Amino acid sequence: MRPYNVWVTAKAPSESLTETVHVVLPNDANPLGFILGGTVMHLIDMAGAIAALRHARVPVVTAAVDQLQFLHPIKVGDLILLRARVNAAFTTSMEIEVEVFSEETLTGARQLTSRAFLTFVTVDKDGHRHAVPPLALETEEERTRAEAAKARRADRLRRREIS
Amino acid sequence: MRPYNVWVTAKAPSESLTETVHVVLPNDANPLGFILGGTVMHLIDMAGAIAALRHARVPVVTAAVDQLQFLHPIKVGDLILLRARVNAAFTTSMEIEVEVFSEETLTGARQLTSRAFLTFVTVDKDGHRHAVPPLALETEEERTRAEAAKARRADRLRRREIS
Amino acid sequence: MRPYNVWVTAKAPSESLTETVHVVLPNDANPLGFILGGTVMHLIDMAGAIAALRHARVPVVTAAVDQLQFLHPIKVGDLILLRARVNAAFTTSMEIEVEVFSEETLTGARQLTSRAFLTFVTVDKDGHRHAVPPLALETEEERTRAEAAKARRADRLRRREIS
Amino acid sequence: MRPYNVWVTAKAPSESLTETVHVVLPNDANPLGFILGGTVMHLIDMAGAIAALRHARVPVVTAAVDQLQFLHPIKVGDLILLRARVNAAFTTSMEIEVEVFSEETLTGARQLTSRAFLTFVTVDKDGHRHAVPPLALETEEERTRAEAAKARRADRLRRREIS
Amino acid sequence: MRPYNVWVTAKAPSESLTETVHVVLPNDANPLGFILGGTVMHLIDMAGAIAALRHARVPVVTAAVDQLQFLHPIKVGDLILLRARVNAAFTTSMEIEVEVFSEETLTGARQLTSRAFLTFVTVDKDGHRHAVPPLALETEEERTRAEAAKARRADRLRRREIS
Amino acid sequence: MRPYNVWVTAKAPSESLTETVHVVLPNDANPLGFILGGTVMHLIDMAGAIAALRHARVPVVTAAVDQLQFLHPIKVGDLILLRARVNAAFTTSMEIEVEVFSEETLTGARQLTSRAFLTFVTVDKDGHRHAVPPLALETEEERTRAEAAKARRADRLRRREIS
Repeated sequence: MRPYNVWVTAKAPSESLTETVHVVLPNDANPLGFILGGTVMHLIDMAGAIAALRHARVPVVTAAVDQLQFLHPIKVGDLILLRARVNAAFTTSMEIEVEVFSEETLTGARQLTSRAFLTFVTVDKDGHRHAVPPLALETEEERTRAEAAKARRADRLRRREIS
Repeated sequence: MRPYNVWVTAKAPSESLTETVHVVLPNDANPLGFILGGTVMHLIDMAGAIAALRHARVPVVTAAVDQLQFLHPIKVGDLILLRARVNAAFTTSMEIEVEVFSEETLTGARQLTSRAFLTFVTVDKDGHRHAVPPLALETEEERTRAEAAKARRADRLRRREIS
Repeated sequence: MRPYNVWVTAKAPSESLTETVHVVLPNDANPLGFILGGTVMHLIDMAGAIAALRHARVPVVTAAVDQLQFLHPIKVGDLILLRARVNAAFTTSMEIEVEVFSEETLTGARQLTSRAFLTFVTVDKDGHRHAVPPLALETEEERTRAEAAKARRADRLRRREIS
Repeated sequence: MRPYNVWVTAKAPSESLTETVHVVLPNDANPLGFILGGTVMHLIDMAGAIAALRHARVPVVTAAVDQLQFLHPIKVGDLILLRARVNAAFTTSMEIEVEVFSEETLTGARQLTSRAFLTFVTVDKDGHRHAVPPLALETEEERTRAEAAKARRADRLRRREIS
Repeated sequence: MRPYNVWVTAKAPSESLTETVHVVLPNDANPLGFILGGTVMHLIDMAGAIAALRHARVPVVTAAVDQLQFLHPIKVGDLILLRARVNAAFTTSMEIEVEVFSEETLTGARQLTSRAFLTFVTVDKDGHRHAVPPLALETEEERTRAEAAKARRADRLRRREIS
Repeated sequence: MRPYNVWVTAKAPSESLTETVHVVLPNDANPLGFILGGTVMHLIDMAGAIAALRHARVPVVTAAVDQLQFLHPIKVGDLILLRARVNAAFTTSMEIEVEVFSEETLTGARQLTSRAFLTFVTVDKDGHRHAVPPLALETEEERTRAEAAKARRADRLRRREIS
């Protein structure tokens, strides 16, 4: 593992917060006219990767996805909004939470349609991992998110040991 | 909910087992030459949807993804294999397990690179759900899988209540 | 032309401001590793269309693009950010300004790389146009933008008469 | 031409047999809702290339396609299945037969919709060809296929001489 | 079969001649940097379909592809040119010949890289076939092409009877 | 800037004239069934780049797009034709005019649907620019086009100074 320079100071979650929006087009959808689960997953992965890149500023790859839910379908012609934020920074990995919203084009009505927790790990061309800057937790909500992320990580590591 | 016809008998997991294979092409990959997590997720969703369609024989949509792990990267030019099977059938939904393997083109060496548990629910044009045929569990391994799927489902429903 | 309901009040530019971000992937790029002009144009059109949809809340189509410049190339692996805002609302059309920035993944350095002025017109299934809500100009900068947009529109209409 | 190592033994057709399955999505189809011929051809080429790669275990490129027929259209929402197998191995090339089936999503009904014979040749970065392992023909059906492949090859070489 | 109006006069091959050109981009290519066979096939099908549409002016679908050869690889960054022409018009189908050329970007050097014979049949929404206008053969070369097309068609029909 | 070899003689606009044609497919279109503005822009950029490459025979990138208009929508299933030609050659850049036509599949009716003026600049791997061969203007129309291109270029440079 390559250490980060000693002068790398902690970063707040707001510094890597990532928001993006797309129109749902016919080629993103199934024959019923609803966006494909796989297309949403692809967008979640890209939004999460951008937040992770912005926090770590080294190349990252997806290591895990947990508790991804699809609560409501999004139809062709509507907008899909994604918001990705760093919940917790570990030694060489990060948990990123991605929330997905639909926005009805003709009314502006927004609805939470998906949420997922992704783990990204740092990596470079030679396969080495890089240290990740610590996360500067400032609000109570941020501290709660970080605690929940640690619990999910412990859970995932325990599952891995069993299997 | 629309009932399935009384003469719909249970189906074995082998009847909907789905296997597929792709070459990893440059446009599936990140700048380091490894397949994107989001591309793998898209392929997992499609393979899982085919297995769910084959069991239920009515339209399905993705409702949840859990415990998706990426254990090893797959590089451009190698093969990606996906195997999807029904672990458990509930009233109007199914748990599908998808395993992903890489196959090195020049040696044939295979490696498990991902595993995920997906929940698909039935749906038709009018938004109605359909009953899913029961799963005929024949081997000890199939019964173990179905038990684990039920536990994951209970876990997911509990999490939903809390949040 | 279909009138908008009398109770449609003016909207501020901030209500339709649209920001989006993407990773530049290998399949967006030319053989030298720089994003294709045509790919940037496609992203500009989509970001502009979302801002226009959010202001008008009726379907829109692109009618014109002017003064689109590419100041710096963006390379594979970097981020491309787009910011689209309504500059002026006319009877059934709008001028949208789209600014494009690159963000270097490893340093976070941002640079303005493109700017363009797009005209979108409202349209529905039957080919009818719809009235567009007026733009509530609040700041000096917003009034300057609206004036410049009117001048560009007059210029475009004059050119059309000549040709 | 680079010789294969003397210890490369013959391989049976079953060792490279390749089966894959896809859902036909709206962006694979023409405006009538049927899969495009060109999309089927692309899938046939990929399935054939995987079978050729698995037999030869060196890079391959498509050299010829013959007798490709489209017997029935496949509609959006149905499944497309491809089965590719090595019919004959020549010095540095192989004939691969690809069969395409549709599977109706709601009934499971399968139908042969296409068949094609593809020739793949080996190649490496420097443009050299590689020797292909011999094909171990074990059943009567396999011997019949290999004979027919040889006849098609002779036919193709004769046509090339004429033109 | 639906008859064409009696006043539909024969059309010359030049009336439906179709020429098109593309840049080969990274996402069209295999890991060695050469265009995929399947991508060329897709382009051949599209060019052929346009020529068939222009001759018949009713919807068409691909029915067969014969004698498709890949003579030289085309590399990323070069141009791919396609020329499609009607060789023969039958009652409700047409044979289209497609020639593919590479054009080296930096020198302009052109080379024939592929040739194929495609059969398109007419079809409408209800599955009915349409009569195809006769082909007005004017030059000796056109008559030779039409004769060869008829021979290929007889050959294909004979093969179908056998199998 | 790298000089062109002294023996590079002027080239006529006809030597780089580029014509291309595509079928509008469902995945090129918005939910109303009309081609996306962004898709047309992408096609315009590619056609323009081919004409610029053919004139300069060195790599080029898009530098500006002006006066792009969308006069009529093109619907799924129709053909889109593009014609790109060099209007003027400057020291290391060129103005390319691209005209876009729709062709109704069932009638053959053609209509001008877009026109745009693009500026391409030469570039190589090291970021150096290359001299562009002079344009041999032969007809009165060609001289008029070149004059108008010079005026547009002066206009663009003036705008850049102001901003």
